[in-house]
Amino acid sequence: MTLTCPSGAAEAAARARQAQLTKPPGSLGRLEDVACWLAGWQDRERPRLDSVHALVFAGNHGVRARGVSAFPQAVTAQMVANFERGGAAINQLCRTFGATLSVHPIDLDRPTADFTGAPAMSVEECDDAMRLGAEALPEAADLVLLGEMGIGNTTVAAAMATALFGGRGADWVGRGTGVDDAGLALKARVVDEAMALHREAFAGPLDILRRVGGREEAAITGAVIEARKRRIPVLLDGFVCCAAAAVAHRLEPGGLDHCLLGHRSAEAGHARLIEALGMAPLLELGMRLGEASGAAMALAVLRGALACHEGMATFAEAQVAGATGER
Amino acid sequence: MTLTCPSGAAEAAARARQAQLTKPPGSLGRLEDVACWLAGWQDRERPRLDSVHALVFAGNHGVRARGVSAFPQAVTAQMVANFERGGAAINQLCRTFGATLSVHPIDLDRPTADFTGAPAMSVEECDDAMRLGAEALPEAADLVLLGEMGIGNTTVAAAMATALFGGRGADWVGRGTGVDDAGLALKARVVDEAMALHREAFAGPLDILRRVGGREEAAITGAVIEARKRRIPVLLDGFVCCAAAAVAHRLEPGGLDHCLLGHRSAEAGHARLIEALGMAPLLELGMRLGEASGAAMALAVLRGALACHEGMATFAEAQVAGATGER
Repeated sequence: MTLTCPSGAAEAAARARQAQLTKPPGSLGRLEDVACWLAGWQDRERPRLDSVHALVFAGNHGVRARGVSAFPQAVTAQMVANFERGGAAINQLCRTFGATLSVHPIDLDRPTADFTGAPAMSVEECDDAMRLGAEALPEAADLVLLGEMGIGNTTVAAAMATALFGGRGADWVGRGTGVDDAGLALKARVVDEAMALHREAFAGPLDILRRVGGREEAAITGAVIEARKRRIPVLLDGFVCCAAAAVAHRLEPGGLDHCLLGHRSAEAGHARLIEALGMAPLLELGMRLGEASGAAMALAVLRGALACHEGMATFAEAQVAGATGER
Repeated sequence: MTLTCPSGAAEAAARARQAQLTKPPGSLGRLEDVACWLAGWQDRERPRLDSVHALVFAGNHGVRARGVSAFPQAVTAQMVANFERGGAAINQLCRTFGATLSVHPIDLDRPTADFTGAPAMSVEECDDAMRLGAEALPEAADLVLLGEMGIGNTTVAAAMATALFGGRGADWVGRGTGVDDAGLALKARVVDEAMALHREAFAGPLDILRRVGGREEAAITGAVIEARKRRIPVLLDGFVCCAAAAVAHRLEPGGLDHCLLGHRSAEAGHARLIEALGMAPLLELGMRLGEASGAAMALAVLRGALACHEGMATFAEAQVAGATGER
């Protein structure tokens, strides 16, 4: 696989523009970096965010039957209905920060297999979900936000992270929607059981996705890879989203260079996963909801960054003196 | 001085509402806290951000003559003109996140005295600037953002922080608009000189403000105190803004309970000052510009928080099942 690259020329032009704007050099911090990063991937000195799409994928998981979530499996479909009626957090955040939300439930009535007993998906099922994710990308987009919903999927993400980066279940599990201490210990045990069953058989990142992932994770992996082919910049969400994106990172070094991480989740495994990915979240607000909600909050940072990049006067335009060499 | 309090009833009602919204309890993290905090200070279960005002105060400083800034003093007035023409970062951020900007230059042609030789202001000058800040608050506001502009004022803020919280100049100074190592050492020396001159004479927080502060700092202190009297919630900006607000903190414990801190600045002294104030910034984006720019970025967080608080469906409305006791 040959990875696409951002435009060095557009990024350099954006960086040169930043240096002329009426502020001390570098004083907008990550707002400057984000503007230049978008310039590179959009191949425009002045990037835009006219067409921003939030894609939320939903799936159900056989491993839920092991009791790894505080919520019943029916909640996945109920929340999809809530998304469609506009009642969830992600609806409000997309409206507030200007993203078009689309929700993609994937075979909710056909949960994956419990991966403590068998591979979660067949090769075909995993491929189908990855293709669905790739095809969910809009024809043209200035930016895509990726998120998920699926009761039980923090256990799925912990299993994927363990398989992709090593360690034991206890290193990667967290309280998800809010399990107690016993639930947390159970999640770690379930992940360790899955590793005992599959570890010898894992044949690369995509096989890990198939064996201990789920449909919404596969869709995110597919969307991340397809976005890279088409040079569409991506804002990633929390722990589950990042575990899915990590498959692309493991397939190819630099495979997530077209992605920014929106928010560091309060879910315990996310900090470790972020470190493994070498990423730096834009926000840390203690959120742990999924649904692309952390990415949608971070969209505000990108909007602020581009507003400054586009709208600020240069030193010359504003007749403001630059830094003096003397004191 | 008796401090006003937020409405415990409104805050509790907001907290109860949050518990019914379609998300695991606490999963929106600080978005939940911020919504409930606003509810308390606005005395409304469902707070609003219809009337948000960013106040930027500007002043000039005699201590600039010591060579403590990379920029000439004329830049203060030039940037005020840039604010008024809409060309600065704060203009773009206010437009993007829905705040009305007002700029308040204070006697720019009459810099304060160099505080290494004399008190920066007379009692009357300091009182006038505080009153100007208090009177700059709009009649009614759902939220006020405070910020500043003034060449040399990170040295002023470092002197105020040293006087208010102890330590030496080197503990509090930073690179400001971008001084080199020699400039940084000079700033520390200048602060230490000011302490040597004034330390024995300091007669409380307001006297510190008068002796080593400046007009835009005094205006912010005045605005913070007046906002508290009127229970107007405030978003604070970076190092200079917080040094000014710290006067209210030192005057009365809890004096900043009506304030949230928008952003942790990259300016070196801010982290220490935040710790002294016991506050937790909403954002950390490496910004170090002042102008209320960090507060304006954080306004996005408050807008996201209120959009969720107001617009989300409850579990009952959406017919979503709650957490199950069983596994």
